[in-house]
Amino acid sequence: MAPTPVSAHDLSQKHKRVVNFSAGPSKLPDTVLQRAQEEMLNFQETGSSVMELSHRGKTFKSVISEAEKLTRQLLNVPDNFRILFMQGGGCGQFAAVPLNLAGSPGATVDYIVTGRWSESAAKEAEKYCKVRKVHAPKPHASDSSDSEDSEEEWWSELSDNAAYVYMCDNETVDGVEFKCPPRTPPGVPLVADMSSNMMSRPIDFSKYGLVFAGAQKNLGPAGVTVVIVREDLMDGRALPFCPSVLSYHVTSRNDSLYNTPPTFSIYVTGLVMQWVRDSGGVARMQELSREKSSLLYSLIENSQGFYYCPVDKSCRSRMNIVFRLSGGEALEKRFTEEAAKQGLTNLEGHRSIGGLRASLYNAVTIADTRTLASFMRDFAKRVAQIDLV
Amino acid sequence: MAPTPVSAHDLSQKHKRVVNFSAGPSKLPDTVLQRAQEEMLNFQETGSSVMELSHRGKTFKSVISEAEKLTRQLLNVPDNFRILFMQGGGCGQFAAVPLNLAGSPGATVDYIVTGRWSESAAKEAEKYCKVRKVHAPKPHASDSSDSEDSEEEWWSELSDNAAYVYMCDNETVDGVEFKCPPRTPPGVPLVADMSSNMMSRPIDFSKYGLVFAGAQKNLGPAGVTVVIVREDLMDGRALPFCPSVLSYHVTSRNDSLYNTPPTFSIYVTGLVMQWVRDSGGVARMQELSREKSSLLYSLIENSQGFYYCPVDKSCRSRMNIVFRLSGGEALEKRFTEEAAKQGLTNLEGHRSIGGLRASLYNAVTIADTRTLASFMRDFAKRVAQIDLV
Repeated sequence: MAPTPVSAHDLSQKHKRVVNFSAGPSKLPDTVLQRAQEEMLNFQETGSSVMELSHRGKTFKSVISEAEKLTRQLLNVPDNFRILFMQGGGCGQFAAVPLNLAGSPGATVDYIVTGRWSESAAKEAEKYCKVRKVHAPKPHASDSSDSEDSEEEWWSELSDNAAYVYMCDNETVDGVEFKCPPRTPPGVPLVADMSSNMMSRPIDFSKYGLVFAGAQKNLGPAGVTVVIVREDLMDGRALPFCPSVLSYHVTSRNDSLYNTPPTFSIYVTGLVMQWVRDSGGVARMQELSREKSSLLYSLIENSQGFYYCPVDKSCRSRMNIVFRLSGGEALEKRFTEEAAKQGLTNLEGHRSIGGLRASLYNAVTIADTRTLASFMRDFAKRVAQIDLV
Repeated sequence: MAPTPVSAHDLSQKHKRVVNFSAGPSKLPDTVLQRAQEEMLNFQETGSSVMELSHRGKTFKSVISEAEKLTRQLLNVPDNFRILFMQGGGCGQFAAVPLNLAGSPGATVDYIVTGRWSESAAKEAEKYCKVRKVHAPKPHASDSSDSEDSEEEWWSELSDNAAYVYMCDNETVDGVEFKCPPRTPPGVPLVADMSSNMMSRPIDFSKYGLVFAGAQKNLGPAGVTVVIVREDLMDGRALPFCPSVLSYHVTSRNDSLYNTPPTFSIYVTGLVMQWVRDSGGVARMQELSREKSSLLYSLIENSQGFYYCPVDKSCRSRMNIVFRLSGGEALEKRFTEEAAKQGLTNLEGHRSIGGLRASLYNAVTIADTRTLASFMRDFAKRVAQIDLV
C-alpha cells in the first residue's frame, strides 16, 4: 500500500489507540484504518464513499477483483479453486458446507471435533446429514508427553464413504491448532474452517477441497466470509433446498455479485491483503506468528507455575494463547483490569470457559506482544515476587 | 446527530462529492460519512475502530441496541414485534421467509408479483413451498386510465389457506410502489420486502406479520438486513432445515448476536437512523419523498413527450423514478454521459430493462433533485429546443 499522508488529527487519534488482543472482531493495521478514513467521502476521485458505490459499477468491480486477486496471489491458490466473497460468517458456512457438498440429504459426513467451533459446525450439519463425530485428542494438561502422532491415531477412524471430512484448523475458544492437515481417505474432500488462522501460514491446497474464513480475525472486518472451493465440488452436490445466498455454485457463477455483497467489508479486506503483501506476505506472517506465540508460551512455561497453559504443547495455537493464573479467578480478573488500564484490552478468555486469552492475529505486532509480555512479567513480580525472564 | 467539526481536509473532499442517484448501494448523508470518518481510529475514546470492537463487548452492544431503539422509535414498532439485524440482504430473506414461516415443507404460500424482485422471491420460495403467484396489474403505458381499484381486483384472489402472503412494497427495477398494503384473508400474515422504501413513510404494523429491508438503500450500507417480525410468527413455523444463520428464532433469542454480526454496517445504519431522527423523522422523509418524486414526474409529464414514464400513474414509485427518452437508446446514453460529467451519476436503468432511473432515497436532497431537474430541462432544450417548466 502506498503510504498515505497522515494529518495531525489522525496522529492525535493514533496516540490514543489501545493494544487490542480480541479474539474477533480484532485489531486491524493502523495504516488500513487510516486509508479507509482518508477515502471515506471520496474514493479514488469518484466523489463517492465506497459504501455508496453501486456493486455493479466498474469502480466496485475493480475493488472486489483486486481483493480476489491479492487473496489468490498471497495464498498461491491454484486455478482450479474459486475464491468467493459471501455473507453469514463461519456460522453461515456451518450450514453452507453440508448444503453444498452433501450430495444427498442424510449423506454421511465426518466431523473432526477439536473444540467449540467444530462441535457447533457438527451440530448444524446434523440438520442435513448423518454426522459422524471423530473426537480428536485434546489433552488439557500441560505436562502430557509429546503427542505428534496423535493425528495418525484418529485420521484412520474416518469413514471411507463420507461426502466430506470437516475440521476447524484453529479453535479460538480452546486455543488448539492443527499443525498439518489430517489425511483423508482417497476421494473424500477435506473442508477446513480457517476463520482464525487464514493468512498466517501457507495452505497446501492439494490437501483441501474447501477452506473458508469469516474475515473478522486475520482478514478484515466482520460481515464478509472468504470461501475458497475446488471447482469440481460445486457440481451436482448441493441439496435442493440450499438457499441461493449460501450456494457456492450461484455465488461463483455470478462472481460473488449474485446479490449485493458487503461492499465496504470487501474493500477493507482488500486493504488488509495489500498490507499483508507489503509486509512481506504470508511467509512473513508465519514467521511473525511463531515469534509472537513463542514469546508468550515461553514466558508462561518459565513462570514457575504463576501462569499456566491448559493446552497440550503438541497442538497449541499460534493465534489464540489460552492461559490461566494458578492464583485463581479473582487474580485473573485483576490481571485483565490492570492490563486494560495500561491499554492492553480484551484479554479475557471466552465466556464459556473463562481464564485468559491473548489473540495474536496478523495485525498484532511483535511490539504489541512484547508490551503484553512486559506487563505479564511486571504483574508476576508485583503479585508473587517472581522474576520472569 | 450532534454536528461534528469538519476539517479543511473533509471540506476539500466534500466539494468533490457527486450527486448519486444509484438504486443501491446508494447515497449516504454527508454528516454520517463525516462522523464515520472522524471516529474511524478511535470510537468513543475506546482507542479502537468500531470494526475492531468485540461484538460481545459493552461498547458494541450499546451500538447495536441504539440502532435497534432508534429503528423502533422512528417506525413506531409495536412491542410484539422484534427487530433483527441479519446478513444476506433481500436475497437472503427470499429464502429466510419460507424457511421460517412456511410451517411445513410444501405449504401453500401466495406471492403478489409486481416486478423483478417479487418474481425472484417467488422463485426462491419454490424450493420450499407450493407457490401461488398472483400477478398484480403493472400497466406499462403512461396513458392508461387511473386504476386505483386495482388492488381490490387482485387481493381477492389470495388463498384462504396460505402460510403467508408475500409482496414487494417497492420494485426498484420496475419503478412500481404499493400505495397501501393489500388486505389478506383473516389470519394470513402479510410479508413485505421494504428494502427500497423502509423509513420513507410510516408503516401500519397491524397490517403486516413481517417486513424486511436490505440496508443499502434507505437505511445504511450493504451487509446488514433489518427484519421486523411479529413474535408469534417465530414459534413452530420454521422448516427443520432452516440454517441457524437465517433463523428468526435463533437471531431473536440471541439479540442478533448468535454469530458475529456485520458490526460496522450496523454502526453506520445507526448513524443514519440518528440522521433521520434529527432531520424530522419518518413523517418528514415522507413529505420530502413526495416532493422530490412529484418534481421529476411533473417535469416528465410536461415534457411534450421528450421524456416519458412507462409506469402507470396509480403505482409509480416515490423512490425509483423510471423514465425513458422518446428519442431512443442512443439519446439515453448521451443523457447519462452528459449528466455524469456534471456530477449526476448512476442514472442508468436496471441492466435488465435499460432506460433511465433516478433513485430518490432519503439521503438524496431536494437540492440534489432540483439539480437533476435543471439538467433535464437543459438537456431537452439543447436536444429538442423544448422549454420545460
